[in-house]
Amino acid sequence: MPYVNIRITRDGATAEQKAALIKGVTELLRDTLGKNPATTVVTIDEVDTDNWGIGGESVTARRKAGK
Amino acid sequence: MPYVNIRITRDGATAEQKAALIKGVTELLRDTLGKNPATTVVTIDEVDTDNWGIGGESVTARRKAGK
Amino acid sequence: MPYVNIRITRDGATAEQKAALIKGVTELLRDTLGKNPATTVVTIDEVDTDNWGIGGESVTARRKAGK
Amino acid sequence: MPYVNIRITRDGATAEQKAALIKGVTELLRDTLGKNPATTVVTIDEVDTDNWGIGGESVTARRKAGK
Amino acid sequence: MPYVNIRITRDGATAEQKAALIKGVTELLRDTLGKNPATTVVTIDEVDTDNWGIGGESVTARRKAGK
Amino acid sequence: MPYVNIRITRDGATAEQKAALIKGVTELLRDTLGKNPATTVVTIDEVDTDNWGIGGESVTARRKAGK
Repeated sequence: MPYVNIRITRDGATAEQKAALIKGVTELLRDTLGKNPATTVVTIDEVDTDNWGIGGESVTARRKAGK
Repeated sequence: MPYVNIRITRDGATAEQKAALIKGVTELLRDTLGKNPATTVVTIDEVDTDNWGIGGESVTARRKAGK
Repeated sequence: MPYVNIRITRDGATAEQKAALIKGVTELLRDTLGKNPATTVVTIDEVDTDNWGIGGESVTARRKAGK
Repeated sequence: MPYVNIRITRDGATAEQKAALIKGVTELLRDTLGKNPATTVVTIDEVDTDNWGIGGESVTARRKAGK
Repeated sequence: MPYVNIRITRDGATAEQKAALIKGVTELLRDTLGKNPATTVVTIDEVDTDNWGIGGESVTARRKAGK
Repeated sequence: MPYVNIRITRDGATAEQKAALIKGVTELLRDTLGKNPATTVVTIDEVDTDNWGIGGESVTARRKAGK
């Protein structure tokens, strides 16, 4: 019964891409650790680029600067 | 000073229902562990059904399939 | 299929107390929002008092100071 | 490569304020623990006041009551 | 620069199994969403079975009952 | 009443260093957003290097390889 939280920047991931993530990580936990897919829970958080920082800067600022 | 994070699918929970959750979990921590309600913090995250998976599928897909 | 994470300071909560928390919060979600207990997941994190701060101080320091 | 998650109520924090938070916490981790800013990740979650509770009440209710 | 948190019960996962999880989820994010592996961060939390509940019971209690 | 969670690798951070982190991040939230230190909560999670991955590898493996 694992719980997985995936956080990505909000960049227009489609429902199909998110379904593929859910399916893929559930299968990975089954194949790697024998975890039961029926009770594996996955949540995906899409975070605005103003609210995500790396290297001391927001992703919004980094993209404006061409990083 | 506990911190509780409750994650549910975004399905139209009302402000009254969310207030009841906050009150209930705060009282539970007081009654079970003697925690001080004044410093008990509760946050509720409502997650889109495309972004919540169980059994390797999104909740959106499961509901369409009648699961 | 809610997911609840409860964070408390590590202060010797017993298995019985933690079981009561798990039961209580699961029932609260059923009674408040109609959530299915079978797929409600609860995790409890016990955090060392050196690693928990409030008011700008660790809980360890606050207790030493009689706060 | 620290990961920091900052949760605040949704109260109109500006992009500039959030950038200052990201910069500040990244520098704090460098100065306190020698962590490399290049791989320090910060995310900010802004939570509706209906979804944030303290003292057993939502922040919405507390503000209405003048607390 | 995704951030992934995987929570599992503490059941003796080996360093090799955890390395396979880290590698697998990083590749999944690259293949599904084009995310850069170099800045994909994964953390794994192993939670005691007394501290993990499902169906209103701790995993410890469920295993004793043969569930 | 912000809540901040700081996750770092378990590398022997001292109680003094963790107290400095708690104090620093609480002051940063006061200075940047006017948040009340009295209700600012900070938790620090120290994660084993086997359980922390970046670039598709655990930190344990990266250090062995001299990265």
